[in-house]
Amino acid sequence: MPSHFEQSQLEQYSLLLNQSILEENFAAFKQLTEQELNPSNLAYIIESNPSNQRIAIWENLTESIQYEIIPYLNDELQASFLKNLSPEKIKTATQDLERDDLADILQQLPDRISDQVLGVMTPKDRKDMEVLLSYDEDCAGGLMNTNFISVRANITLEVVLRFLRRHSDLPEQMDCVFVTSRHEKLVGILHLSKLLTHEPDLTVREVMNSDIEGIKVNTSSNEVAHLFERHDYVTAPVVSNDGTLVGWITVDDVLDVIREQADHTVLSFAGLDEEEDTFSPAFKSSQRRALWLGINLLTALFASACAFLFEATLDEIVALAVLMNLTPSMGGIAGTQTLTIVIRGLALGHISKNNIRWLLGRELIVGFNNGLLWASVIGIAVYFWKASIGLSIIIGVAIWINLIIAVITGTLLPIYLKKKGIDPALSGGVILTTITDVVGTFIFLGLASIVLLS
Amino acid sequence: MPSHFEQSQLEQYSLLLNQSILEENFAAFKQLTEQELNPSNLAYIIESNPSNQRIAIWENLTESIQYEIIPYLNDELQASFLKNLSPEKIKTATQDLERDDLADILQQLPDRISDQVLGVMTPKDRKDMEVLLSYDEDCAGGLMNTNFISVRANITLEVVLRFLRRHSDLPEQMDCVFVTSRHEKLVGILHLSKLLTHEPDLTVREVMNSDIEGIKVNTSSNEVAHLFERHDYVTAPVVSNDGTLVGWITVDDVLDVIREQADHTVLSFAGLDEEEDTFSPAFKSSQRRALWLGINLLTALFASACAFLFEATLDEIVALAVLMNLTPSMGGIAGTQTLTIVIRGLALGHISKNNIRWLLGRELIVGFNNGLLWASVIGIAVYFWKASIGLSIIIGVAIWINLIIAVITGTLLPIYLKKKGIDPALSGGVILTTITDVVGTFIFLGLASIVLLS
Repeated sequence: MPSHFEQSQLEQYSLLLNQSILEENFAAFKQLTEQELNPSNLAYIIESNPSNQRIAIWENLTESIQYEIIPYLNDELQASFLKNLSPEKIKTATQDLERDDLADILQQLPDRISDQVLGVMTPKDRKDMEVLLSYDEDCAGGLMNTNFISVRANITLEVVLRFLRRHSDLPEQMDCVFVTSRHEKLVGILHLSKLLTHEPDLTVREVMNSDIEGIKVNTSSNEVAHLFERHDYVTAPVVSNDGTLVGWITVDDVLDVIREQADHTVLSFAGLDEEEDTFSPAFKSSQRRALWLGINLLTALFASACAFLFEATLDEIVALAVLMNLTPSMGGIAGTQTLTIVIRGLALGHISKNNIRWLLGRELIVGFNNGLLWASVIGIAVYFWKASIGLSIIIGVAIWINLIIAVITGTLLPIYLKKKGIDPALSGGVILTTITDVVGTFIFLGLASIVLLS
Repeated sequence: MPSHFEQSQLEQYSLLLNQSILEENFAAFKQLTEQELNPSNLAYIIESNPSNQRIAIWENLTESIQYEIIPYLNDELQASFLKNLSPEKIKTATQDLERDDLADILQQLPDRISDQVLGVMTPKDRKDMEVLLSYDEDCAGGLMNTNFISVRANITLEVVLRFLRRHSDLPEQMDCVFVTSRHEKLVGILHLSKLLTHEPDLTVREVMNSDIEGIKVNTSSNEVAHLFERHDYVTAPVVSNDGTLVGWITVDDVLDVIREQADHTVLSFAGLDEEEDTFSPAFKSSQRRALWLGINLLTALFASACAFLFEATLDEIVALAVLMNLTPSMGGIAGTQTLTIVIRGLALGHISKNNIRWLLGRELIVGFNNGLLWASVIGIAVYFWKASIGLSIIIGVAIWINLIIAVITGTLLPIYLKKKGIDPALSGGVILTTITDVVGTFIFLGLASIVLLS
């Protein structure tokens, strides 16, 4: 079974998988999920589908494949699939997970369920888990695993080799064993490559790297990521404040930190958080984005209030000049939110022609909802200000239409640009705001000309 | 020598280092650079300093320390420091670099110099380098190293162990050896952890993982990053189109790809590219950002032109209403550029109280330059439109002042927010644009009231 496919092959498989479900062709589904696709590819396909298809694929998988896929899904999906299982099943489903990943999942689950899962563990496992759960998710303690291997400095490599041979299930990522004192203090690191290239009768002390300092257990994840980047670590030991070795961090978890941190920055610029999934449902997505639009409305009103101070200067239809910037501004923000989500989705390879239509539909609903919400608010406010029902309707309608145009542009523009080989992150924003500015100004003043001056 | 410090300790060291240079206290400089700081920390400190200090630190280092630091510097700095050295010195300086990193540097150097460097290499090294240089920097071939170790499937682990013991300098990151057929086709991977935990008389074939497919040499870096993330690889083999093993990629290079890709997205939103270094000099930085402001001006003019269509509706001092959005808009874009650079600098840990003053000074120069440029352009254009020298000066001055206020806000706001524990990426943008909108509108209309209506 091939271990990885190109993007385009995975898109093809995603299509076939959805087709087999629609056509209730269970033989094809079984062939695809049990023969052709491995768990990490299946997880990727699930993540690249809107929620209904996600659930349909998930529910058609055999239990044992579900268990294999769990580790490859993002935290939010893991929690959403797991929370419907009994504590025993969760335990089975997660038994192959690394401890730190399991701790992340337990933190996502409702307390009641995570307590039950801890309840069915062996006392030792439970104690280990409780230690991991006691650390903040965003620090070295939350990233580490506790299944490290440590040896003493005074033994020979021969003894280490014999010792390792007794462990049949060394983690594949393990590139070193840690060297500790009798009091479990970290004193060095012995890389497997050194272990393999030195004479077996040398002692650990003669071969180990003692230049190394452990990462303190309460170091922030960001700082951990910097250390890995700066020092090109694959694994690093984690120590308590008194230097006792308590765990180790592997680079795969650091990759996730960097990816999340990067996502966070990109999404934050549009007032979104990293929980924002490309395919979260319209209603949830509307809610998350509505607040940001409201904040923007408030701040745009500051500028309007400022213009209003100069009423004498702009005396004729002062209201028009004062309110002129609101429609383009709201459209710009709503469009940027959509654009950011779509660009991130493209970067992660989650968007393909299989799901553009779904995405556009979702965005239309979001634009419709949030447009209606803020158009009503501003319409009512303007009515109280000027007691002009005409002006009130004009600005409301202009904002509503502009928001809908903004989300359509925000969805289709980056996909189109990418297809043409133009970088959507660079040129998408400026094209989008030009469209929302021009359309917003045109609709608002155009409606005003027709309604108020006729 | 401790291998890593916390952020705050490094800031302290950076201060001490600069002080020792200013005071010409060479004993202190020597103590710091040769005893207390290791190469990766020194590289980090150099990257966190403005260009004059960078050069001062660099030039005071001994040649051997310079050589040790090179691998830890970013590509642009490597190239800028190396291009002043003779080809022989470059060869010495880069001899400990991994091949892929050396290839990246050679690609950055002027062709004339890189040819000379190739000229002083041994024929074998030169041939290896030329193969690496033939691949695009942004594909698997550009990321890979060629110093992998491959074995045949039919030998025993005992033989592999003996074979490895002869290599005294296995790369620390090596977590596996590759298994190839007689025709150098990749047939499997033998993880060192498996090699260590299985009986030495088993054959490689019995223990190796044959589920693995190599990454094709022309796969894009982004796709490579996705594969590493999805499959939690530490290293992965690279194969030519016919399946011949040609190299391997290690996760540290993939970390860089993810970091660069993330940087690219964040910076692109403000019209910047990932070459934009937090501490690049004011003039270079002004140039890079001026174009984006010009594009924004053009697009904001579309909206103005649109408002102009409704001259009848906005008939009194139509010019004011039509031009009202330009000043806030330009300020918003200039401020966002600064904000983006500062937020990225904070995320990378490059900004500290040691260099805020320098950064603010640089930003003031950039704001002054770009403000003057676009204020003149729009002032002249308005003069031709309305033949009003007053209006022309008003809009020019308003844009200029607003751009300067925007860059000050863009620099200090995120630093202040971070200090208060507020996420600058989330709230920085909205606070900044509120300030630039309000100040921009106020200055423009305020000046207009004073000058035109008095």
